[in-house]
Amino acid sequence: MLSVLRLGHRINRDARISTHCGLVARAFGANEIIFSGENDAKLIEGVKKVAKRWGGKFYIKYEKNWKKTIKSYKKKKFSICHLTMYGLPINKEIRKLRKRGNLLLVIGGEKVPGEVYVESDHNIAVTNQPHSEVAALAIFLHEYFKGKELNKKFIKARLRIIPQVKGKGVIEHQQ
Amino acid sequence: MLSVLRLGHRINRDARISTHCGLVARAFGANEIIFSGENDAKLIEGVKKVAKRWGGKFYIKYEKNWKKTIKSYKKKKFSICHLTMYGLPINKEIRKLRKRGNLLLVIGGEKVPGEVYVESDHNIAVTNQPHSEVAALAIFLHEYFKGKELNKKFIKARLRIIPQVKGKGVIEHQQ
Repeated sequence: MLSVLRLGHRINRDARISTHCGLVARAFGANEIIFSGENDAKLIEGVKKVAKRWGGKFYIKYEKNWKKTIKSYKKKKFSICHLTMYGLPINKEIRKLRKRGNLLLVIGGEKVPGEVYVESDHNIAVTNQPHSEVAALAIFLHEYFKGKELNKKFIKARLRIIPQVKGKGVIEHQQ
Repeated sequence: MLSVLRLGHRINRDARISTHCGLVARAFGANEIIFSGENDAKLIEGVKKVAKRWGGKFYIKYEKNWKKTIKSYKKKKFSICHLTMYGLPINKEIRKLRKRGNLLLVIGGEKVPGEVYVESDHNIAVTNQPHSEVAALAIFLHEYFKGKELNKKFIKARLRIIPQVKGKGVIEHQQ
């Protein structure tokens, strides 16, 4: 099982970035995302709506306090893996991480509390350059699943794309 | 040469997503990003500041009209590659694209004009699921450079990270 914890969501500032985190977690094969920070019903509903229309099994949850989530996932024997530009290079660590069993991937925003580094079993960098938690999450999952997530099938999808050289091809299934 | 064109930036709505696009383009080895749409001095300055502090050669430009950019890059013999969930799967197309020489990677927002699909030489999907232009850009560059961009050196960097198991290690070079 691979779960994603998004730290410290702020309704005004992070709405779109957090939405992208949720959609990337789903599209690249994670099982669930937990948003911490401010309770943003619109964010949760938005990601849930996409998950429903485009199919697959993916859970979207909210837990105000990230510490509680990390604690409870540790109890469930998940390894805690924090994505940070200050961590060890993903390309050197990914083999080890694939063997760790259940993972809780923690992705931060701009100000991540020092405790997150300490509480995490692994601090992993997707490049040591400043960029984006959305990109870091996508690359991590892509490496973790060895690119196989690109062919993932999403069950019970109402909408399905038929890839096109030019233009848009979408099939809508009545359910 | 690999250039990125970000379509239709809107100051109020896209500030952070466009910033992430700029930072991802730089961190994952593109040579430049061109922002089209609204002229956002803060966005341009923000990405330029990161590029200056963290080193490397990376150019940030603004051109209001995306059509002008596509036209001028076509004249310069760039292949135009549009990232869209409706396109052909990246894993099947990437070998071909690596041989195309100079590329202009076009990344959109929510409403991409139909002309972009027609004007592009390639419409490429990073999964046929809705997610994020930030993630699509990162995965494209990661595949294009075969993961080697993760070890890219950034010349004349003022800030450099020393990867840590826990915590933050940054070296600041006086220049």
